[in-house]
Amino acid sequence: MREPFFADIAPVRYEGLKSTHPLAYRWYEPNRLVLGRSMAEHLRLAVCYWHTFCWAGSDPFGPATMPRPWMQPGDAMALAEQKLSVAFELFEKLGVPFFTFHDRDLAPELGSLRASQHALKVMLDKAQVMMERTGVKLLWGTANLFSHPRYMAGAATNPDPEVFAHAAAQVRDALEATHRLGGANYVLWGGREGYDTLLNTHLKREIDQLGRFLNLVVEHKHKLGFKGTILIEPKPMEPTKHQYDYDVSTVYGFLERSGLAKEVKVNIEVNHATLAGHTFDHEVATAIALGIFGSIDMNRGDPQNGWDTDQFPNNAPELVLPLYRILQAGGFTTGGINFDAKVRRQSIEPVDLLHAHVGAIDVLARALLAAAAMLEEGALSRHIDQRYAGWEGELGRKITEGQIDLAGLANLAVDADLAPKPRSGRQEMLENLVNRYI
Amino acid sequence: MREPFFADIAPVRYEGLKSTHPLAYRWYEPNRLVLGRSMAEHLRLAVCYWHTFCWAGSDPFGPATMPRPWMQPGDAMALAEQKLSVAFELFEKLGVPFFTFHDRDLAPELGSLRASQHALKVMLDKAQVMMERTGVKLLWGTANLFSHPRYMAGAATNPDPEVFAHAAAQVRDALEATHRLGGANYVLWGGREGYDTLLNTHLKREIDQLGRFLNLVVEHKHKLGFKGTILIEPKPMEPTKHQYDYDVSTVYGFLERSGLAKEVKVNIEVNHATLAGHTFDHEVATAIALGIFGSIDMNRGDPQNGWDTDQFPNNAPELVLPLYRILQAGGFTTGGINFDAKVRRQSIEPVDLLHAHVGAIDVLARALLAAAAMLEEGALSRHIDQRYAGWEGELGRKITEGQIDLAGLANLAVDADLAPKPRSGRQEMLENLVNRYI
Amino acid sequence: MREPFFADIAPVRYEGLKSTHPLAYRWYEPNRLVLGRSMAEHLRLAVCYWHTFCWAGSDPFGPATMPRPWMQPGDAMALAEQKLSVAFELFEKLGVPFFTFHDRDLAPELGSLRASQHALKVMLDKAQVMMERTGVKLLWGTANLFSHPRYMAGAATNPDPEVFAHAAAQVRDALEATHRLGGANYVLWGGREGYDTLLNTHLKREIDQLGRFLNLVVEHKHKLGFKGTILIEPKPMEPTKHQYDYDVSTVYGFLERSGLAKEVKVNIEVNHATLAGHTFDHEVATAIALGIFGSIDMNRGDPQNGWDTDQFPNNAPELVLPLYRILQAGGFTTGGINFDAKVRRQSIEPVDLLHAHVGAIDVLARALLAAAAMLEEGALSRHIDQRYAGWEGELGRKITEGQIDLAGLANLAVDADLAPKPRSGRQEMLENLVNRYI
Amino acid sequence: MREPFFADIAPVRYEGLKSTHPLAYRWYEPNRLVLGRSMAEHLRLAVCYWHTFCWAGSDPFGPATMPRPWMQPGDAMALAEQKLSVAFELFEKLGVPFFTFHDRDLAPELGSLRASQHALKVMLDKAQVMMERTGVKLLWGTANLFSHPRYMAGAATNPDPEVFAHAAAQVRDALEATHRLGGANYVLWGGREGYDTLLNTHLKREIDQLGRFLNLVVEHKHKLGFKGTILIEPKPMEPTKHQYDYDVSTVYGFLERSGLAKEVKVNIEVNHATLAGHTFDHEVATAIALGIFGSIDMNRGDPQNGWDTDQFPNNAPELVLPLYRILQAGGFTTGGINFDAKVRRQSIEPVDLLHAHVGAIDVLARALLAAAAMLEEGALSRHIDQRYAGWEGELGRKITEGQIDLAGLANLAVDADLAPKPRSGRQEMLENLVNRYI
Repeated sequence: MREPFFADIAPVRYEGLKSTHPLAYRWYEPNRLVLGRSMAEHLRLAVCYWHTFCWAGSDPFGPATMPRPWMQPGDAMALAEQKLSVAFELFEKLGVPFFTFHDRDLAPELGSLRASQHALKVMLDKAQVMMERTGVKLLWGTANLFSHPRYMAGAATNPDPEVFAHAAAQVRDALEATHRLGGANYVLWGGREGYDTLLNTHLKREIDQLGRFLNLVVEHKHKLGFKGTILIEPKPMEPTKHQYDYDVSTVYGFLERSGLAKEVKVNIEVNHATLAGHTFDHEVATAIALGIFGSIDMNRGDPQNGWDTDQFPNNAPELVLPLYRILQAGGFTTGGINFDAKVRRQSIEPVDLLHAHVGAIDVLARALLAAAAMLEEGALSRHIDQRYAGWEGELGRKITEGQIDLAGLANLAVDADLAPKPRSGRQEMLENLVNRYI
Repeated sequence: MREPFFADIAPVRYEGLKSTHPLAYRWYEPNRLVLGRSMAEHLRLAVCYWHTFCWAGSDPFGPATMPRPWMQPGDAMALAEQKLSVAFELFEKLGVPFFTFHDRDLAPELGSLRASQHALKVMLDKAQVMMERTGVKLLWGTANLFSHPRYMAGAATNPDPEVFAHAAAQVRDALEATHRLGGANYVLWGGREGYDTLLNTHLKREIDQLGRFLNLVVEHKHKLGFKGTILIEPKPMEPTKHQYDYDVSTVYGFLERSGLAKEVKVNIEVNHATLAGHTFDHEVATAIALGIFGSIDMNRGDPQNGWDTDQFPNNAPELVLPLYRILQAGGFTTGGINFDAKVRRQSIEPVDLLHAHVGAIDVLARALLAAAAMLEEGALSRHIDQRYAGWEGELGRKITEGQIDLAGLANLAVDADLAPKPRSGRQEMLENLVNRYI
Repeated sequence: MREPFFADIAPVRYEGLKSTHPLAYRWYEPNRLVLGRSMAEHLRLAVCYWHTFCWAGSDPFGPATMPRPWMQPGDAMALAEQKLSVAFELFEKLGVPFFTFHDRDLAPELGSLRASQHALKVMLDKAQVMMERTGVKLLWGTANLFSHPRYMAGAATNPDPEVFAHAAAQVRDALEATHRLGGANYVLWGGREGYDTLLNTHLKREIDQLGRFLNLVVEHKHKLGFKGTILIEPKPMEPTKHQYDYDVSTVYGFLERSGLAKEVKVNIEVNHATLAGHTFDHEVATAIALGIFGSIDMNRGDPQNGWDTDQFPNNAPELVLPLYRILQAGGFTTGGINFDAKVRRQSIEPVDLLHAHVGAIDVLARALLAAAAMLEEGALSRHIDQRYAGWEGELGRKITEGQIDLAGLANLAVDADLAPKPRSGRQEMLENLVNRYI
Repeated sequence: MREPFFADIAPVRYEGLKSTHPLAYRWYEPNRLVLGRSMAEHLRLAVCYWHTFCWAGSDPFGPATMPRPWMQPGDAMALAEQKLSVAFELFEKLGVPFFTFHDRDLAPELGSLRASQHALKVMLDKAQVMMERTGVKLLWGTANLFSHPRYMAGAATNPDPEVFAHAAAQVRDALEATHRLGGANYVLWGGREGYDTLLNTHLKREIDQLGRFLNLVVEHKHKLGFKGTILIEPKPMEPTKHQYDYDVSTVYGFLERSGLAKEVKVNIEVNHATLAGHTFDHEVATAIALGIFGSIDMNRGDPQNGWDTDQFPNNAPELVLPLYRILQAGGFTTGGINFDAKVRRQSIEPVDLLHAHVGAIDVLARALLAAAAMLEEGALSRHIDQRYAGWEGELGRKITEGQIDLAGLANLAVDADLAPKPRSGRQEMLENLVNRYI
């Protein structure tokens, strides 16, 4: 029998603020009730398969620095099984309730679609056993439609319809796998659904193809009876020069155009938000306002580096407002918080995977407590209500309810010689207010 | 009688490539036929009133460097008239067919809405006389809803409905002014329609207000019988931290949400495109693909400076593809190319206004000729047609026409063991091809 | 007698973490001893004159939103006096020990150099009285060499030597004013010492001029007997397209080239660091490593906005490491922490100035406590010592002490078949460690 | 005998502007005299080994799309030889006079330093034969000190001195290899000489180590009698979060600090310049002004993508000014123009390597002709001379020659009541002037 990969590491426990144990939770207490729900239920934390078990530390300037045992030459299925076992070992050490995966993370891509399908089914059986044994659940599954060279010019948006068909096969299988494992959502990230140059690109055609593809997926979901949410994960660029699912607002427009605004929601990644020129908080607020908020890919970018660094979060204040906003909107339904984050290339030891997740989980727990207190005390929302109070008055209602036209309003303004006085926006006071909760 | 402002400067004429006259056109020959239309009709060039006649060289670190005579203390209406006269002097020197203006560029804002209305009407009379005399036409008008402190927290998106009403009065008047002057379009740029901090902002409410406002404007346009196009000008930020009309895709989603995707188009500014993380060409291509392409605000940003520098364009190769794309889509209808550009703060002499426009017009004319040749020879479009040829085949049509579902496609791919071969995207070859036309 | 400007606002006091008073310090306890020094001595906080008393809320798209009484038309000297009085009112309300100013903040620029000189002298007398009465001291003075149009093409780097001479006059006076008021430092920020375009710029000549100017200033300092530090404040751009004092490393090279690396240090601004593509922590660390660390301009930028937003700091974790680094290097000598920050354009009431400073001071106090604890417990420095321990061994010393040449080292490596093993960089563990202190 | 890799492709010839052959030069005429030198001598073009022969199309989201025959499994030395043969095949097809390489491009890294040394020597013999046969020369050599995991925390700046020693061995060998092949320069790019986090970094120690290393290299160069130039290639970041050789100014400061400002020059890469927040033209101008201009790595970045895209140049206007500046400074001495550029990941066919180089060479040739004409006619330099003419007058000389101190200048300014008048910077006129040459 194989030895555990994290052999010398004890399961991570909550020890509170006095603990100096580097591998204990100081803030995350899964069963602690916060606004009537446990922390675990609020955060719905998931570990991702790809960065954590499939990435070995390569970057564009150098190869793997942390080649894992299951990445050595050998029988592909046996190695996949070894990886699965290490994955659940980590899930249990951390005590996280969920995981997430791509089809090709779990099972190898083999010489034909049929062979790959079979491999996936075999691994699903094994994963199911592990899930039952441990109680760890699937937050979402997805299909890798970007690594294989066949997808170099896109999957659904490829100039070649055979690639579209190939992608359809992978998604069908991955969606069914997700359904079978009881996944709460299914995610589509269109890593190559964009362009490297407009010179060789028929933009309208490609957007139409993407809409067609998404409609096929939604139809199939309903045929299957899959009750989870279909999620699109926006990203502006990288690996493409430009990706069609640029940001939350772009995805919203695309969903409207494709007739799917009520069927599909977004999985927002922090680092993708900042690459698109937005704060993470903006993307969350926008998705909530547009009614398409779904789930979170938690990580952080480097404000000085213009690529997707996928670092683990480490700044609690930055997460308080997005969590406040999510709580205010009722919290996650099917969604949750997936760590789409990888250890740094120099963090080559197994224990570094623990440090990374433990610190990140604590940062989130800390932010959750602050967000909940803010929500409970209501100081921020009171301020906003007062600021917009005029819109609950007579003039405000007349406008929003459509009882007055442009000329009517114009005449009203002229006749009354309206000269509305600017009022302080109180930004600094509100920033201080938030800091009081952290 | 007042002396001409550009007294020593002769009208700018086409002299061709051999000319070394710094104030002659070397490429722009207004009446030259290109693909069956004159250059002037293709480009529909406009000079803007604000940067050219209302900006005096101030920046956040220093005051005016080029205070114009009409900016000195004096009778507001007399100064506005002087400015008008200089404006038409320049239009005629340059031989451009169009201009554009904000209400507050043309006439001063006075102590009450009624007084400002009156001032605007007086100036419209005078402008109309000038337009008739010179034949210069109005590409579009707009209202300044961002300078006055009342708008510091937005116009339509203000927390105070009285500000909304005030904005309605300005837009009603500006739209009617545009109609009266025979304007081809009416533009809305929501410079303060965004937020400085989400802490004091009710995002959904503000987007709803903006949608309401736009609907009022469109209704009024129809009541008036104005046949021009209503245009939204996207910009991602500045002066706000975040502006709701972030980019073309965001505006498209907003129009769909507000039920106006068939009523309103976009006025794309080059520098706004790059501030939003896009190429100008991307924004044009996207607007055409989404069916909302309207007009252009021509300028350029500085790739190293993160603010709206509004420089005059000077790189013809960068403009060839967007112009190619516009020609390919049939050219401008009501839209045109407005120079939303200002001379540098150190370009303090009247003649610098001439240098700036003459160089920019020539850059566009040169790019137009290249774009037209590319379109005529068809090499680029042939390459794209070949690349997507599969979508005109059996499998492609089946997919786009909705004759096959996800499972059908998946089974087809598995049964046929599809292994589509990647084909070269030929980016470098196509870049070279375009360079051949410049 | 004039009424106080902050009439209804009580002096800000320390009330501790339980306080919910929005204008009380929760962390800043000036006399609390931290590592043997009071918090006040550690932080050496200063309020700046320009943003706080001379800026009225204008931005490139709109005029003043908060015109102060002393900005109204009137006798320039009387208004300057009123401003002085309000300034000291605020210094006392906040209980900050220092302030900073430009010559033109304190006294108006009048019709001739001589008249402006006289105005400055009059205001210095009045400032001196205020300083004596209140005990508030001067952290540094500086000259405004960027606002007046004469400086539009630079001061020391102007193509016109008369502008250089004019700048010399202002700096001579401002340096002497600083000396007279007992200033601890004198700062040079070369806002226009750069270029808008290389097309009209003789780069080498301008850098030589700048070096000449700085040498004149240093000479004059010694003649005066001024014991304070001469500081250069780096900034990469804005208002210029490119500024010569781009960042700390660039300034270091410039000082070496000008023979002044031992005479002049840097005043590092947070927002300038991030505009240059660096973290603030990087700039502090670099300045300490290069031996030119002097003082801090505290503020923050907006990571999504590419201009100098000069916001007040609000994220304590971001400041812990720079403060840790400064403490580790022995703390400030003549330098301190100046709030080069302005309230947002919508924060139009006097009380907003209080909110802004109180929150910022608390954020710094909190970060100081965390930094001091980190330094005291030594966990971070122990880790670094261990990581580099090899350099204290035989091979390390041989190399650093120059006892072995390239061939010697190469042969040693080949003969020993050196195959050094990578060790984990432990980034996530260290990030968690730092979070424990916040 | 192996078949040629570019079997169906004829050698690229100059055919002039009328040619529509996609693989002919339209502008590059190697022997054409320009300002008394041949185009080939002016440009000193080089093809790089790494991107062109060692990169197979992988990116962070997918593996190789263009695996070359010599990247298949097999005998490492036989494959290296095959690669060498293809490389010279391309050099000859293109007719470029130079190439560049890393030690590990030419020969494989084997199990021990000694074995790798031997492999390098074997390949050098073979390369020398090829060079003699073809007349292709070496522009520069370098050592790969960033790919192998041993270098993950830096080479010279590694916390482990054994890594420093290992790097010394590689550089000694690569420098000697360069010397042996008659290389004109030797380049150091410190891809990992920086940090991922300051938390585990001793900044000063690392900069000192880097200075020590560079001194060892320069000493060895002199011992060898190598007459070429030692060049540092600045880059701000990637793969590291921050690289010590950030930009030209930073390198200059580092050289001064290390006592090497007269020994070492810079190799400026276009894409590295833009990643550092500068124009390429700025970096060239700065290096010339500081006396450390050496050589060029030609490529371009994508202004919307924040990573090193290393695309081939395609915009001639952007290159005119840097080339003008280089010509004005006397042209290249040992340096030249190396294409540090790679085809796009979708450009998977051998012919794409030709398209890429041919287009890039033509863009440079075109820019060279424009730059030479500008230099010859002198319009730009005349404008600059006039602008700074005051510095050749009495006051200017007094200042630059140090004949007047600060007080003297101040008194002069006050006594004369200097009020220098701003003069137009003429930016737009100059931009138009440059456009006339393109």
